[in-house]
Amino acid sequence: MNLKHLNLAPAEVDHIIEARWLATVVKDVPFLEHYSVMVRNDTIIDLLPTEQARAQYTSADRVSLDGHILMPGLINLHTHAAMNLMRGIADDLPLMQWLNQHIWPAERAVVSYDYVKDASLHACAEMLSGGTTCFNDMYFFPQATAAAVNQSGMRANLGLLVSEFANSYATDADDCLQKGFEAHDSWRGNLMISSSMAPHAPYTVSNRSFEKIITYAEQLSIGIHTHLHETRDEISQSETEFGARPIRRLAALGLLGPNFTAAHGVHLLPSEIDMLREHGCHIAHCPSSNLKLGSGIAPVSLLLKNNVNVGIGTDGAASNNRLDMFAEMRLAALLAKGASEDPASLPAHQALEMATVNAAKALGLDDRIGTIEVGKQADLVAVKLDELTISPCYDPVSHLVYTCGREHVTHTWVAGELRYSNGLYANIEPLELKEIIKKWQPKLKQHKQ
Amino acid sequence: MNLKHLNLAPAEVDHIIEARWLATVVKDVPFLEHYSVMVRNDTIIDLLPTEQARAQYTSADRVSLDGHILMPGLINLHTHAAMNLMRGIADDLPLMQWLNQHIWPAERAVVSYDYVKDASLHACAEMLSGGTTCFNDMYFFPQATAAAVNQSGMRANLGLLVSEFANSYATDADDCLQKGFEAHDSWRGNLMISSSMAPHAPYTVSNRSFEKIITYAEQLSIGIHTHLHETRDEISQSETEFGARPIRRLAALGLLGPNFTAAHGVHLLPSEIDMLREHGCHIAHCPSSNLKLGSGIAPVSLLLKNNVNVGIGTDGAASNNRLDMFAEMRLAALLAKGASEDPASLPAHQALEMATVNAAKALGLDDRIGTIEVGKQADLVAVKLDELTISPCYDPVSHLVYTCGREHVTHTWVAGELRYSNGLYANIEPLELKEIIKKWQPKLKQHKQ
Repeated sequence: MNLKHLNLAPAEVDHIIEARWLATVVKDVPFLEHYSVMVRNDTIIDLLPTEQARAQYTSADRVSLDGHILMPGLINLHTHAAMNLMRGIADDLPLMQWLNQHIWPAERAVVSYDYVKDASLHACAEMLSGGTTCFNDMYFFPQATAAAVNQSGMRANLGLLVSEFANSYATDADDCLQKGFEAHDSWRGNLMISSSMAPHAPYTVSNRSFEKIITYAEQLSIGIHTHLHETRDEISQSETEFGARPIRRLAALGLLGPNFTAAHGVHLLPSEIDMLREHGCHIAHCPSSNLKLGSGIAPVSLLLKNNVNVGIGTDGAASNNRLDMFAEMRLAALLAKGASEDPASLPAHQALEMATVNAAKALGLDDRIGTIEVGKQADLVAVKLDELTISPCYDPVSHLVYTCGREHVTHTWVAGELRYSNGLYANIEPLELKEIIKKWQPKLKQHKQ
Repeated sequence: MNLKHLNLAPAEVDHIIEARWLATVVKDVPFLEHYSVMVRNDTIIDLLPTEQARAQYTSADRVSLDGHILMPGLINLHTHAAMNLMRGIADDLPLMQWLNQHIWPAERAVVSYDYVKDASLHACAEMLSGGTTCFNDMYFFPQATAAAVNQSGMRANLGLLVSEFANSYATDADDCLQKGFEAHDSWRGNLMISSSMAPHAPYTVSNRSFEKIITYAEQLSIGIHTHLHETRDEISQSETEFGARPIRRLAALGLLGPNFTAAHGVHLLPSEIDMLREHGCHIAHCPSSNLKLGSGIAPVSLLLKNNVNVGIGTDGAASNNRLDMFAEMRLAALLAKGASEDPASLPAHQALEMATVNAAKALGLDDRIGTIEVGKQADLVAVKLDELTISPCYDPVSHLVYTCGREHVTHTWVAGELRYSNGLYANIEPLELKEIIKKWQPKLKQHKQ
């Protein structure tokens, strides 16, 4: 069909992005070549071969990406953005020494609304520049994180943190719940922020609080996000205290379900993998953090084989030490192969699915984000594949996962707005980030190794 | 002592590099602050606090690196540079399918003096831009690799490859040996190129050839570099054919010794780790490649605990898919912790040692390279640690290993010459790399997945 013969005037859209390659992350379409994405307001309204798009659409903002792949924005399924200024404050230490002597004292010294807002803004900058458009967070003062998210223009699912222990944020679990509801209420109508109940972990939350959390998650129709089976210690402690491994305890309480996302899941028995599948639960796999803290290697090949939905997270910068979803995609793919001794395990396209659409499913946001499809939000990332030192490129999805790094991201759009491009942010000034570091690093430094 | 009172005229040197941090990689000195390195010809002639250096030395070339760490050039202890144009030609496949249907046919189609020279030059460019100043190679046509190394201005230890199998390079093992000697002779007097006998692997080299190799290595006073215990199949095949695991077979032949570097060493029994230590052998650990090919996870924590000298290699780009020593340092450190479930295993400074001085020891070049010390070659790399998105920095060595990537390398000097700086090479034109890809990619593409 020659569209010119139809004599239709080209339709005006807000942005046209022409890409050498397009990874839609829609099943069975590994990638498209010479494709264009048309965006109106915050939404993808059409996808066409570029030649056809040029005939049908016009825009004052046409971006031509001759050597790039365009992919859905990456979704970081487990992080603590506000730990970004604790990056590298202590490394290579046994877990309890790391927590007791460094991380917890540092947190006691600084954690406040202001700290969380500042550190989260720094994390948003790091994530946007690395192609992450949405993150699933858990930390004190989620309203402060929200303020940073709003400024940056990115998207987040913020945890309404619950823990029994008093700190500068809340006095106990009930106070946490109260503060969480206030936060949740304040985000009503904010399309960029969603939330989950976020009981910190089985070892910091009582049965009574877990039961409340189930009720509130149902009432608010939101998800539940917790740490689970990260370390062997956590499991043996639960066996001693509750006579059951943590996942069985949570199952008995009725916590497991399709709105439940467990971060880590490093140590899982086959029967527990079955439970996760049967309940439709999601795993946020954090390979760098699990390795760095010596927690172990999650059985990702087995989880995937058993059709458990697995996304990828960076965890916080204190245990990674970067919020770099490219590094996590690559590591997830490599580690699954190495640990299972099967090079066909977790191929590149599946790593990309985990970092996009699988995470969107876990967040219950897969009707809006996670793939490039007509009607979805225009959360889009351009990655330059044709830089000389990383050439040649035979398969753009393999190249994206195995060869590229976050430094090859050139553009990050969120909800149709260009939020990062070639070193500059739409709403974050470099000077502002500098001031944030100048303000907090001296306070944190006292707790360094 | 106030040197100005001595009234000495400042001495003239070729380069003065002033660094915010200096990682000398000399034992027990994690890093120095505000230090300068003085270089005359190819050699480091002094190291001083910058203030003192300014009083004592002068130079027409003074480089001030206010936010950088200066470290010894990284040494890639196992690679096949000429496989650089096969990067990503096939991924996520079982090993034999990968080799039989993709890698070997691709090699048969292109391998020649010209191909090896071109692809190796591309690899040199990739390595220099990522802070690698020396690599330990093994491939057909080592004289072609040498031509690329010479052009790039970097340093290499080139394997005199030996395999029983006929190909475009040689008809059999004796022909390989003959060609190897010619290559070795041609490099006499070339301070940038050294060589090792390079029997490909226990499964491609006969006992008769191994015996010759021992004799020749002794006569030429050079090392031996081979693949060893990379996969379980290799081991069971050897048990069937020779009645012994490969390392025992090589030990019986008399191959093990302080000039012996084994690439991989993924599957090693405790008694075999003891053998490696007793013979003073070296391991080239290739974590990305071992994971990607599903070979497994090398017992690096155990090797280090048993005082086996371990360096780090990228392996070839076909199984990595990048020649990125930053990625390998980080992965080596993380993987050792995760696999041993000990977060204190392989700390950052040890990863840096593995990528520098340990590799220099394995190559028998530790009197010349591997650390920043007076009298050593000026193989130096500057890495920018103060970029905003990766801030703050509490410990520059942790930052280097866990937070930075190769994209933060700003300067690479080899033997006192600046060979790479901020995207540009001293002796490699971008157009040349473009032409190389244009020439070979179409020929290789036919063998892609």
